[in-house]
Amino acid sequence: MARISLRRKIYRVVFEAETPAGKVFDVVLLFLILASVLTVTLESVTELRRLYLPYFIALEWGFTIIFTIEYLLRIYSSPHPFKYMASFFGIVDLLAIIPTYLSLFILGAQYFLVIRVLRLLRIARIFKLTHFINQGQILTTALRASVTKIAVFLGAVLTIIVVVGSLMYIIEGAASGFTSIPKSIYWTIVTLTTVGYGDIAPVTPLGQVLASFIMIMGYGIIAVPTGIVSVELAKTDKSSFANTRVCPNCHEEGHPADANFCYNCGYRFLNE
Amino acid sequence: MARISLRRKIYRVVFEAETPAGKVFDVVLLFLILASVLTVTLESVTELRRLYLPYFIALEWGFTIIFTIEYLLRIYSSPHPFKYMASFFGIVDLLAIIPTYLSLFILGAQYFLVIRVLRLLRIARIFKLTHFINQGQILTTALRASVTKIAVFLGAVLTIIVVVGSLMYIIEGAASGFTSIPKSIYWTIVTLTTVGYGDIAPVTPLGQVLASFIMIMGYGIIAVPTGIVSVELAKTDKSSFANTRVCPNCHEEGHPADANFCYNCGYRFLNE
Amino acid sequence: MARISLRRKIYRVVFEAETPAGKVFDVVLLFLILASVLTVTLESVTELRRLYLPYFIALEWGFTIIFTIEYLLRIYSSPHPFKYMASFFGIVDLLAIIPTYLSLFILGAQYFLVIRVLRLLRIARIFKLTHFINQGQILTTALRASVTKIAVFLGAVLTIIVVVGSLMYIIEGAASGFTSIPKSIYWTIVTLTTVGYGDIAPVTPLGQVLASFIMIMGYGIIAVPTGIVSVELAKTDKSSFANTRVCPNCHEEGHPADANFCYNCGYRFLNE
Amino acid sequence: MARISLRRKIYRVVFEAETPAGKVFDVVLLFLILASVLTVTLESVTELRRLYLPYFIALEWGFTIIFTIEYLLRIYSSPHPFKYMASFFGIVDLLAIIPTYLSLFILGAQYFLVIRVLRLLRIARIFKLTHFINQGQILTTALRASVTKIAVFLGAVLTIIVVVGSLMYIIEGAASGFTSIPKSIYWTIVTLTTVGYGDIAPVTPLGQVLASFIMIMGYGIIAVPTGIVSVELAKTDKSSFANTRVCPNCHEEGHPADANFCYNCGYRFLNE
Repeated sequence: MARISLRRKIYRVVFEAETPAGKVFDVVLLFLILASVLTVTLESVTELRRLYLPYFIALEWGFTIIFTIEYLLRIYSSPHPFKYMASFFGIVDLLAIIPTYLSLFILGAQYFLVIRVLRLLRIARIFKLTHFINQGQILTTALRASVTKIAVFLGAVLTIIVVVGSLMYIIEGAASGFTSIPKSIYWTIVTLTTVGYGDIAPVTPLGQVLASFIMIMGYGIIAVPTGIVSVELAKTDKSSFANTRVCPNCHEEGHPADANFCYNCGYRFLNE
Repeated sequence: MARISLRRKIYRVVFEAETPAGKVFDVVLLFLILASVLTVTLESVTELRRLYLPYFIALEWGFTIIFTIEYLLRIYSSPHPFKYMASFFGIVDLLAIIPTYLSLFILGAQYFLVIRVLRLLRIARIFKLTHFINQGQILTTALRASVTKIAVFLGAVLTIIVVVGSLMYIIEGAASGFTSIPKSIYWTIVTLTTVGYGDIAPVTPLGQVLASFIMIMGYGIIAVPTGIVSVELAKTDKSSFANTRVCPNCHEEGHPADANFCYNCGYRFLNE
Repeated sequence: MARISLRRKIYRVVFEAETPAGKVFDVVLLFLILASVLTVTLESVTELRRLYLPYFIALEWGFTIIFTIEYLLRIYSSPHPFKYMASFFGIVDLLAIIPTYLSLFILGAQYFLVIRVLRLLRIARIFKLTHFINQGQILTTALRASVTKIAVFLGAVLTIIVVVGSLMYIIEGAASGFTSIPKSIYWTIVTLTTVGYGDIAPVTPLGQVLASFIMIMGYGIIAVPTGIVSVELAKTDKSSFANTRVCPNCHEEGHPADANFCYNCGYRFLNE
Repeated sequence: MARISLRRKIYRVVFEAETPAGKVFDVVLLFLILASVLTVTLESVTELRRLYLPYFIALEWGFTIIFTIEYLLRIYSSPHPFKYMASFFGIVDLLAIIPTYLSLFILGAQYFLVIRVLRLLRIARIFKLTHFINQGQILTTALRASVTKIAVFLGAVLTIIVVVGSLMYIIEGAASGFTSIPKSIYWTIVTLTTVGYGDIAPVTPLGQVLASFIMIMGYGIIAVPTGIVSVELAKTDKSSFANTRVCPNCHEEGHPADANFCYNCGYRFLNE
C-alpha cells in the first residue's frame, strides 16, 4: 500500500503540475533543459571549448545523470511503463540521455550534438499543462485545415521555381555563378522567398529582367498562404470562441455565454 | 466491338483514375515525370555530366520512349484526337518528347533543357483527379477576383519603382554601381521587394535616406496584396461553404442556414 | 457655332473615351507615353547613348512636339482652361514637355530625367476612364481608413529603429562599419524590413544577438500593417458590395440585391 | 490663493492640451525633442563632430537646460509630485536630462548616447492627447489578445531555429563560416526571417538543400503571425465599433445594434 502510494506521489510530481511540488519540478526541469542546450551550444565555440572543456564535460555528465534519474522515475511511476517508453515524449526523453553514454564508446561524438539539442522538444511537455495548449490547438486546427490549399499552392510555386531556375541557368550561365540547374534552382528559391543572399546574382540584362519578375512575383505570392491561414484562423477562432449561444425560443444566434435573456425575444435563459 | 472496347479500356487507364489500373498508371507516371526532371537537373552539373554522360543519355532516351508510347496511346484512345492534341495538356505532352528527337539533328541541344523541365506541368493533370482540384478552384476564384485590384496596385507600384529608380540614378550615379536607369530600376525592385542582394547598395547619405524610405514603403506595401487576397479568399470560402442552402421549390442557391423563406420565390422552408 | 462644335469635338476625343476616336486617342497616347519613358530609360545606358545619341535626341523631340500639341489642344478645348492648367494632370502635362525645351538653354539637362519619367503619371488619367477606378477607390478608402492606425504603428517602429540604431553604434562601433548613428539607423532599417544587403553586418556576438532580436521582431511586426489593411479592406468591401438589403417588414439584414422575398418572414420585396 | 492658481495654470499648460497655451507648449516640446535627438544623431558622425563640436555641446546644454526647467515645472505643478517622478514618463523625463550633467563628472559619455535618444519616448506623451490613443488602444488590445498564440508560435519557431542551426553547423562546418552553433543559429535566423545578409552562406549541396527548405518554410511561416493579428484586429475592431449598444436599465454593454431586449436584465429596448 505504501509502495503504491509512493509511486502515485512520484507520478503526481513528475507527470502532473497540479501540486506545488509538481510545479517546482516543472520549473526546475525547464531551467535544466535550457541550461543543457545552452551548454551544448557554447561548447561548439572553438575558443570556449579550448578554455573550458573539462567544465563542459562535467556539466554534460551532470545534466545526463539528472535526466537519467528523471527518465527512470518516469518509467517507475508510469502506470503503463512500455506505453510511455514508446510514446513521442518517451523517445525524446531517451534521446536526451543516450548521446552522452554513447560518447564513451564511439568517437566523433560531435554528430550527437543535434540529438542533444533535441532536448528542446521536452519543453513542449511542460507547456502542455498550461492554457498554451488551447491556443496551440486553434493554431494546429487552422493549419491542418489549410494544408490542402497550401499544398496546391506549394506545388505551383515549386513548378515555377524549377522552370525559372532552368531558364536562368541558360540565360546567365556558369560565368555569373549559375553553374548548374540545381544551383540555379537554389538561387531562385533565395530570390523568390526574398532572402537574397547576394552570393549569386544575375549579371546579364535579360537575367536581371527575369529576376525582377521573380522578385515581384515572390513579393505578391506571399499573399496567398497568408490569406489562406488568416481565413482558416478566423473560421477556427469563430467556431470555438465566438458568441454562439442560441435562444431556444426564437433561435436567434450570437448571445454571449453569460447572457440571461435573449436580446431578440426577451426569453429568459436557464443558467445553472 | 472488341476494338472499341480496347480503346475504351485504354482511355480509362490513361485518362481516368477511377479504376485500380488507372491509379497505378498515374502513380507510375508521376514517378517517371519526377525522375526525368531530376535527370535533366543533375545532367546540368558539370562534374556529374563528365562522369555519367552515357547513363544520362540512356535514361533520357528511356523516358522519351515511354512518354512517346503514352502520347500515342492518348491520341489513339481519345474520342477526339485532334481536340486532345490541340489542348493545353496535348501540347505539353508533345513538348515532353520533342526535344530528345530534335537533339539528333540540331546542335546546342542544351537550350531544350527548359522545354524538358516543362514536363513538370504534366503533374497538374494527375492531381486534377483528386480533391485538390476543389481547393485549387477556391484559390483560383479568389485570385481571379483580386486581379483588377492587384493590377491597380501593381501599376502604382511600378510607377513608383520607375520614378525612384531614376532618382537614385541621379543621386548615386555610376560610381556606386547605379550605372544606368534600367540598372537603378533593377536595384529598386531588389530593394522594394525586400530581396536585397547587396550587389548594388547606396553609398551617399542622400541615397541611403531615399533607400530607407523605399524599404519602409516596400515593407508596408506588402500588406496591400495580402489584404486583397485574404478578403477575396474569405468571400470565396464563405460563398462556397456557408450560404449553400438551396430552395427545394425554385432551386435558388445561397440562402443562410437559418432562412425561413426562399428569397427568390418565397417558398417556406421546413425547419425542424 | 461651327467653332464651338469643333471645340466640343476635340474635347470628346481628348478628354473623354466614350467615342471610338476617343478610345483610339487613349490607346495611342498610352503607347506614346510608354515609348517616351522607355527612351529616357535606355538613353541613360552609357553604351547605347554613345552609339545612338542622335536617334535618342530625335525621338525625344518627336515625343515632346506631339505632347505639346496635345497640351495645347487640351487648353483650347477645355471649358475652363485655367482650371485645367492648375489641376494635377494639367501640371503633369506641362512637366512632360518643359524639360526638353529647357535643355536648349540649360546645361546638365540630365537632372530633368526624373521629370521626364513623371510622364508615367499621365497613364493614370487613361485608366481613370475604365472600371479600374472603382477598384482603385475601394483600395484608397481602405488605405485612408487605416492611416491613423498605421501612423501609430510607424511611430512606434521608427522609435524602435532610432533606439536600436544608437545601441548598435555603441555595441559594434566603427570597426564593423557602424561608423555613425545615422549609418546604424540605416542598417537597422535594412535589417528590420528584412531587406538585408549585407554591406554592413554585425560582427560581435552581442551585436549579432541584438540583430537576431531585431530580425525576429521585424519578421513579426510585418503582421501588423497587413492585419490593419486586411480588416479595413474587408470592411470597405463588405459595405460597398455585400448583401446588405434589409427587409422593411422584419428588419432582417443580409439579403442579396436581387432578392424577391425576405428569407426570414417571407415579405415580398417591391423590385422596380 | 494666487499661488495655487499659478500652479494650476502651469499644470494646464504643461500636462494638458485643452488650452491654446497647452497646445503651443506641446508643439514646441515636440519640435525640441526631435531637434535634440537629431543633434545626438548628427554628433555621432565623425566629420561633423570634428568640424562643429562646440556647437553640438552648446546645443546639447541648451536642450538640457530647457528640459530641466520643464521637469522642475512638472514636479512643481503636479498634484502628486512623487507619484509623477516614479511614473514611466517621470523617469523618462529625468533620463532626458541626467546624461548631460553626468558628462561633467564621468568620461566616456558616449555611452549615454542611447539614453539621450530615449527622449523620443517623450513624444508618446504628446500624442496621448489626440485621437491617436483610440487607434493605439485597438492595436494594443489586438496584440495583447494575440500574445499567447504568438508565444506558442515563437516557441515552435525558436525550437526549429536551434535544431536547424545545429544541423547546419555539422553539415557546413567552420570552412563555410559556420564556425559554431551560436553562429549557425544566427545564420538560421537571418535566413528564416528572409533578411539574408550573405555574410555567411551555405556552400555544400546538402547545406543548400537544407537552406532551401528553411527559406520556403520561413516564407510560409510568416503567414501565421499575420493571420493571428488579422483575426484579433478584426475581432477587436468589431467589438469596439459594432456591438456597443448599452442597456439603459442595467448599463450592460455589447448588444448588437438591432437587439430588442437586454441579454443581461431582459429590459425591452425602445426601437423606433
